[in-house]
Amino acid sequence: MPVQDGPFSALHPIAAAAPFCGADPVSDEGIVLDWNRETRVGVAEAVLCAGKTTEQIARIVVLAVTRNRSLLLTKLDAGRFAELEPTVRERLNFDPLSRTAVLDNGLPISVPAGVGIVCAGTSDLAVGVEAQRALAFHGVQAPLIADVGVAGLWRFLDHLEQIAAWRIVIVVAGMEGALFSVAAGQVRGLVIAVPTSVGYGVATGGATALHSALASCAPGVVTVNIDNGFGAACAAIKLLRMFAPSQ
Amino acid sequence: MPVQDGPFSALHPIAAAAPFCGADPVSDEGIVLDWNRETRVGVAEAVLCAGKTTEQIARIVVLAVTRNRSLLLTKLDAGRFAELEPTVRERLNFDPLSRTAVLDNGLPISVPAGVGIVCAGTSDLAVGVEAQRALAFHGVQAPLIADVGVAGLWRFLDHLEQIAAWRIVIVVAGMEGALFSVAAGQVRGLVIAVPTSVGYGVATGGATALHSALASCAPGVVTVNIDNGFGAACAAIKLLRMFAPSQ
Amino acid sequence: MPVQDGPFSALHPIAAAAPFCGADPVSDEGIVLDWNRETRVGVAEAVLCAGKTTEQIARIVVLAVTRNRSLLLTKLDAGRFAELEPTVRERLNFDPLSRTAVLDNGLPISVPAGVGIVCAGTSDLAVGVEAQRALAFHGVQAPLIADVGVAGLWRFLDHLEQIAAWRIVIVVAGMEGALFSVAAGQVRGLVIAVPTSVGYGVATGGATALHSALASCAPGVVTVNIDNGFGAACAAIKLLRMFAPSQ
Amino acid sequence: MPVQDGPFSALHPIAAAAPFCGADPVSDEGIVLDWNRETRVGVAEAVLCAGKTTEQIARIVVLAVTRNRSLLLTKLDAGRFAELEPTVRERLNFDPLSRTAVLDNGLPISVPAGVGIVCAGTSDLAVGVEAQRALAFHGVQAPLIADVGVAGLWRFLDHLEQIAAWRIVIVVAGMEGALFSVAAGQVRGLVIAVPTSVGYGVATGGATALHSALASCAPGVVTVNIDNGFGAACAAIKLLRMFAPSQ
Amino acid sequence: MPVQDGPFSALHPIAAAAPFCGADPVSDEGIVLDWNRETRVGVAEAVLCAGKTTEQIARIVVLAVTRNRSLLLTKLDAGRFAELEPTVRERLNFDPLSRTAVLDNGLPISVPAGVGIVCAGTSDLAVGVEAQRALAFHGVQAPLIADVGVAGLWRFLDHLEQIAAWRIVIVVAGMEGALFSVAAGQVRGLVIAVPTSVGYGVATGGATALHSALASCAPGVVTVNIDNGFGAACAAIKLLRMFAPSQ
Amino acid sequence: MPVQDGPFSALHPIAAAAPFCGADPVSDEGIVLDWNRETRVGVAEAVLCAGKTTEQIARIVVLAVTRNRSLLLTKLDAGRFAELEPTVRERLNFDPLSRTAVLDNGLPISVPAGVGIVCAGTSDLAVGVEAQRALAFHGVQAPLIADVGVAGLWRFLDHLEQIAAWRIVIVVAGMEGALFSVAAGQVRGLVIAVPTSVGYGVATGGATALHSALASCAPGVVTVNIDNGFGAACAAIKLLRMFAPSQ
Amino acid sequence: MPVQDGPFSALHPIAAAAPFCGADPVSDEGIVLDWNRETRVGVAEAVLCAGKTTEQIARIVVLAVTRNRSLLLTKLDAGRFAELEPTVRERLNFDPLSRTAVLDNGLPISVPAGVGIVCAGTSDLAVGVEAQRALAFHGVQAPLIADVGVAGLWRFLDHLEQIAAWRIVIVVAGMEGALFSVAAGQVRGLVIAVPTSVGYGVATGGATALHSALASCAPGVVTVNIDNGFGAACAAIKLLRMFAPSQ
Amino acid sequence: MPVQDGPFSALHPIAAAAPFCGADPVSDEGIVLDWNRETRVGVAEAVLCAGKTTEQIARIVVLAVTRNRSLLLTKLDAGRFAELEPTVRERLNFDPLSRTAVLDNGLPISVPAGVGIVCAGTSDLAVGVEAQRALAFHGVQAPLIADVGVAGLWRFLDHLEQIAAWRIVIVVAGMEGALFSVAAGQVRGLVIAVPTSVGYGVATGGATALHSALASCAPGVVTVNIDNGFGAACAAIKLLRMFAPSQ
Repeated sequence: MPVQDGPFSALHPIAAAAPFCGADPVSDEGIVLDWNRETRVGVAEAVLCAGKTTEQIARIVVLAVTRNRSLLLTKLDAGRFAELEPTVRERLNFDPLSRTAVLDNGLPISVPAGVGIVCAGTSDLAVGVEAQRALAFHGVQAPLIADVGVAGLWRFLDHLEQIAAWRIVIVVAGMEGALFSVAAGQVRGLVIAVPTSVGYGVATGGATALHSALASCAPGVVTVNIDNGFGAACAAIKLLRMFAPSQ
Repeated sequence: MPVQDGPFSALHPIAAAAPFCGADPVSDEGIVLDWNRETRVGVAEAVLCAGKTTEQIARIVVLAVTRNRSLLLTKLDAGRFAELEPTVRERLNFDPLSRTAVLDNGLPISVPAGVGIVCAGTSDLAVGVEAQRALAFHGVQAPLIADVGVAGLWRFLDHLEQIAAWRIVIVVAGMEGALFSVAAGQVRGLVIAVPTSVGYGVATGGATALHSALASCAPGVVTVNIDNGFGAACAAIKLLRMFAPSQ
Repeated sequence: MPVQDGPFSALHPIAAAAPFCGADPVSDEGIVLDWNRETRVGVAEAVLCAGKTTEQIARIVVLAVTRNRSLLLTKLDAGRFAELEPTVRERLNFDPLSRTAVLDNGLPISVPAGVGIVCAGTSDLAVGVEAQRALAFHGVQAPLIADVGVAGLWRFLDHLEQIAAWRIVIVVAGMEGALFSVAAGQVRGLVIAVPTSVGYGVATGGATALHSALASCAPGVVTVNIDNGFGAACAAIKLLRMFAPSQ
Repeated sequence: MPVQDGPFSALHPIAAAAPFCGADPVSDEGIVLDWNRETRVGVAEAVLCAGKTTEQIARIVVLAVTRNRSLLLTKLDAGRFAELEPTVRERLNFDPLSRTAVLDNGLPISVPAGVGIVCAGTSDLAVGVEAQRALAFHGVQAPLIADVGVAGLWRFLDHLEQIAAWRIVIVVAGMEGALFSVAAGQVRGLVIAVPTSVGYGVATGGATALHSALASCAPGVVTVNIDNGFGAACAAIKLLRMFAPSQ
Repeated sequence: MPVQDGPFSALHPIAAAAPFCGADPVSDEGIVLDWNRETRVGVAEAVLCAGKTTEQIARIVVLAVTRNRSLLLTKLDAGRFAELEPTVRERLNFDPLSRTAVLDNGLPISVPAGVGIVCAGTSDLAVGVEAQRALAFHGVQAPLIADVGVAGLWRFLDHLEQIAAWRIVIVVAGMEGALFSVAAGQVRGLVIAVPTSVGYGVATGGATALHSALASCAPGVVTVNIDNGFGAACAAIKLLRMFAPSQ
Repeated sequence: MPVQDGPFSALHPIAAAAPFCGADPVSDEGIVLDWNRETRVGVAEAVLCAGKTTEQIARIVVLAVTRNRSLLLTKLDAGRFAELEPTVRERLNFDPLSRTAVLDNGLPISVPAGVGIVCAGTSDLAVGVEAQRALAFHGVQAPLIADVGVAGLWRFLDHLEQIAAWRIVIVVAGMEGALFSVAAGQVRGLVIAVPTSVGYGVATGGATALHSALASCAPGVVTVNIDNGFGAACAAIKLLRMFAPSQ
Repeated sequence: MPVQDGPFSALHPIAAAAPFCGADPVSDEGIVLDWNRETRVGVAEAVLCAGKTTEQIARIVVLAVTRNRSLLLTKLDAGRFAELEPTVRERLNFDPLSRTAVLDNGLPISVPAGVGIVCAGTSDLAVGVEAQRALAFHGVQAPLIADVGVAGLWRFLDHLEQIAAWRIVIVVAGMEGALFSVAAGQVRGLVIAVPTSVGYGVATGGATALHSALASCAPGVVTVNIDNGFGAACAAIKLLRMFAPSQ
Repeated sequence: MPVQDGPFSALHPIAAAAPFCGADPVSDEGIVLDWNRETRVGVAEAVLCAGKTTEQIARIVVLAVTRNRSLLLTKLDAGRFAELEPTVRERLNFDPLSRTAVLDNGLPISVPAGVGIVCAGTSDLAVGVEAQRALAFHGVQAPLIADVGVAGLWRFLDHLEQIAAWRIVIVVAGMEGALFSVAAGQVRGLVIAVPTSVGYGVATGGATALHSALASCAPGVVTVNIDNGFGAACAAIKLLRMFAPSQ
């Protein structure tokens, strides 16, 4: 990996002096995929692309193709996706809004399972679709209801009957995150809050929405990290597999 | 004010060497009351007791009595109140829940004025009553509806018709402060948010409720400092006096 | 509620001028209990005692007794409990470690339901027992395994077989909260993290443990507010009732 | 919305498996506009463009055109505006300084209403004009006085007579926000503070100005989120409509 | 210093095994006073009592008495002062408001030097007097003008002529600290800001006032730590001694 | 200023409906320069370019040229400078490292005045030169000693004799800012700390260096905002003019 | 552990319904001591008393006595120590300054090992002695040099020869923590920084000192948590045992 | 360094009026290299490129070449590297992943020394390689094991035997940093934690990982600044040279 640049490299192979000590022959790039994660904890290995170089992402896809494994990639910007070589890109089902890609050598047909997603605003849709696609990747079909924030509460109440029928309600909201408490005060299903970084001023970065979820006056709200639609989907999948194994 | 303690004080009157330079003869204790504030900005001088010594508070009450002026004291703990001398205490109408006291040599009869107060939880009542008493001190009678947080939204909706008739709605809430957005999404009156320090964990100190008010997705919410029921009342009084001078 | 103190009170009943506008005859103290919460959202009304006055807590207990309802009180310090009148105290099953009390006119027999609690350290036990008692209040018997933090990982691994059989694993940890990720990387059940305020320096207040739960590298961890054992129990109860209604 | 990219898309229409569940036929993009907001809460629906994709913004404009509705767009960067198609752009009255655009099929003639705007510095002008244009959008003509910060207090005092005549004074200031307190200590009108993100070092992001507004020693200051000129305008409009319905 | 408690102490003098390695015979308690500080940097050694045990404070006073040196003690609470032995107490000129004490074996007569102190509120007086007494300890007589915050700007302007004549203006303010900018925009003397921890909500602890001083739009404001009246006095003394050595 | 874009602008001159209310004929762009600042507070008007548009900066320069005034511009990035028209650029003495420019129609000859600047690292030089040029703009010649941080303390000690002779020592440091305390513990001159945003991790943004200056164990350190070399220079100038008017 | 209080306890043994699931017969109180920690990681099990109840601490001591093991207790306040029963207290060598206690059934004789401790101020001594006693508990005799902060740099330089001879230098400092960088810039030994919570204003809690250690311009400084003298000692012990096993 | 731009520069050489006062003839650019650092503190001078201009970096390399010294450059982005002139670039062994470059006129052959590096994730590799190359620069060959985070604990345990043999274990982790505690609870070697800025939401910037290291429940973990692989390497080198001088 270290680039040998200039006449000194032959004389002083500094990086080469301390070679990587990878776990298996294909991981000499510092990559060790956890292929049996799904068996052990109930959700499949996935790759967080933010923070990785384009080369590392490409290498991971190749490793999965080599093993004939499916793979979900998250936080993959359109710009970064465009940097991948065409032979890699064409193997990925990419969605630029949610910044997710799926490498798929045989996904299950996704079926309804009593899980749904509610987004407070249009801007929260990107994270909501990340959750939706992560659920689909694991075979769970989840409807998504968008733009029903509490500034116009009627939008949420119009869908209340449908939402109240779900066993798990993934609520995606930024800004002040009031929808978490409103929803959790109205339904019997578990509310998994996904705070988003949508907003400005004190809402910048998403901490306000996160803290609203954590401090909710409605009992039983649980939350995941800011913008972590993938994490909410994983929690739902684990529950479905523990409580309703046939799904 | 400096206590002269021990044999050195006669020789070295350190503090006395630099006497306070007060604005008028009665302010040699470092106190300059702004008696014409009500004329200038529309709300009367009031005294924030937190941070002042018992002696300073007592001195201020005496100054007001001397001038035959009314006075509102806020953030006056019951313990601090008990430290005041009986001759001072008996002149004050004290409410331990809201930690307010009124020195009153002729308050106006308070009348309804289209301002009301809504408290999310029982714990927010202390701050709500602070606002209520500050309004009454200025002649404004404001109803208070308590314990109608969004965990049980029906409690708020049960009162919606009454609340929607108010021109100014003071909403008092701690924890995640979702009531600010819910109320502002339902009524035409101005919502003045009073975030409170009620809550624990990430809600400790009130920043979560404050940020929820500021980042509200419902347009037109304004806010005051945490636990500042007095400030919300002042804003309402200023508006009433500008828009409806007869009140 | 406002104390009428001194000769001015008869002339200027300030607080009385704007009476509380309660929802029903028994709520003239600013208390509106949400008795049908259990039907609506799956968990029963409970009372957060932190931030409430002793009088308010006592009044709430009386309201519940009058209606012949059970009630869970949380964050009730031993000192505050001791201030309650004996006639109130004797109706409460109080546990000083978890600061919980139960008013019980006929609790269900609690039964095992595939939910368990793991505490990282002895100091986390208070919050863990809060969760345990909140589950028992709703009829769910949950075993609790204590003092198995990752400083001595063998302690956790010794119990792994038992923990891995649970459908929901409530993990209670303060300090750096590493146990959240370790547990979630090993079991198929949903990990509900309860960060605690145990620790000092950068761990003071619990934000470090909270952030560890949110940023966990193990997929599917969900979290509740710092020290909120009650909230984790509520989430578990909602899930059990949605997925396994007979429980 | 999900882009179908590459040969896998036909076989595995992941996103399509869980279609959006929008509120009306034109909202299949995750957009539900709150057309009756003005009737319900007194201010019209507006669109916060920050956080939305160019496609979403364009779609919203088309929805409004279809319904023959006016619309205000905020936080619309010049770069983003330039990405819109010419057919959309030409329908918008765009101001790059305030990053606002107005889609206008028949705006009211704006009239003076006792509301004015004061900006501390030239850099605060962008947010001040956002407020001014949001007021004009609702038919309120508001004068704006710029660059009168307290470093040269004479600049503010020169305008004091004019400012003191306003019923509502929107004060826009960044850095340390001292102008909020100075103004509120001098005028009878309600001061609505709009802290801005102008400044560097500890003033970066605007929290210093925001906290100055909240902690003001002058009674009755209310505040909105950092850079939220639109929100201050909304509060003013709600008040004008409640107190002076003919406006 | 380690207390030997119980039968193990004789056998295992743990602390004694690693004796303190003090700089001189009288510092075996871990105390090394910097007696030549005044010569080196222009201000005398002083003792910050917060964080020290009563025994350590007493020992320091004894060391100074032994050497026949004067000494200033700061942040000495009245309760802590009361714990000192009478023989120590009687040597100290103690002021409970500013929590300062002076051990004085021959202080200079303090003379006017063009330095003055302005306090925004009565609650800021404690810190202002700390500065005043620290100046007096070094022979500088500084007038103090109190309770002239910007909520009633006339109070400050009434004293403007006097203040404008000072070469150094120590401004003490809590809450939003607007007085720093107002003063610095009006006078030619250097404004040294002393933010205080006076206030609540976002002003708790004093960070809001501190940030206002740092972000001041008026050029040339310098600041010291929150509540550090002593530090502002030291800066003034250093300047006086550099620029006007005869003082 | 609002751009009239598209066919709606003629019909709906929204911004024009509420014209700016500037202080003098040349300030219709929202600019009011404080030309008599130097007389009033001892330092000249200067322009903080960060946060202003290129048009606003150009307009300010033109205003100064019209009045035949000198002007200092700070935080003017090289990129922004390049956007100015050549006729403006050629009137400015621009320094890209310190991001300062001087419009000069007759600057005084700067002379030594007992003020000097010390920079901890090479990266702090930009802020140090900002201070140096702001001093020169006011006629004060200040030597600058660079790259003498405490990692190699000998570098500072090598210059100690020179530094100790200065009456005012401007110390510029980022990262942990240890040089503030080291210098203040060694010299009699006033140390004005200028914390910089140099550093990464916990030092990002400069808060660590700022807090080190404020919490310095060496008495009498004063500080200005992060990266505010200009502010430190202003403080020095004010002192020189008060104490040594001939300078 | 749960207190059975009142007549309901017999009928509803809530806590008893879900018994603790301890790891061994003596841990039914939620305590599992890691007796083989010293073998595994090189330092012995120790007990952080902060956050534990008095009963839990007493129980732990009894467990150690039963097993004939030595034990170190940290953060044990004098007040808490006094609450222990005399039979427990008399087995502990307690030091109130450092809040440490040692249960000792045969400690090794501690010997010099090239480790020393430097404290910046007298107030830091408590944490320094915690480190010293933790080292002694493991058989390492470490000299401690106190009150040598950089405000008077000569105090540190006077000891430089001694300090430079140590292989590991534990530096304990609060406030701005400048001593970390000064020491690390002068010695070859590893500097382990122990930031303390000594200080006020921005130094409150110790974050300023911590960040100074982390952002030090001197290469190779490592740090532990605020006030964690114990942790620094453990690091030193691990190093000594790895590099010089005979010690 | 100041650019003389425009006709005013000849008349008003502002910057030239106050020339830099460098320590030696080659440092007239504000650069003073600490060439004897390695002798004094055990690690060589290195250059943090972040925050320096391209010209400053180039000048430093030239200074080193002139003195025939080796040099390590850190945080040198590939983009910045590309801006250097070819004659400078060709002298540097540059690695874009770790952003390090080595100017080498005779590096030692690096040899194994009982130090190793463990990276939690692939994204942490950049910082891990920075440590590895800094060690190599000082002659220490350190193996690196990558992508063994606790989400799949088996990956770490597979390497436990190898890791447990190291005397110093540099652990590099972002997100929640659980690997620090897991490793420190399993090995006798000193764990030096290097938290990284890898992650999003609450993990943004690396504070969560940093706090996990500091609050670790495993005794003896020490930490360096976020992303400071170089610092961890320096600590290791200092230890090796103190304890095993022949290395």
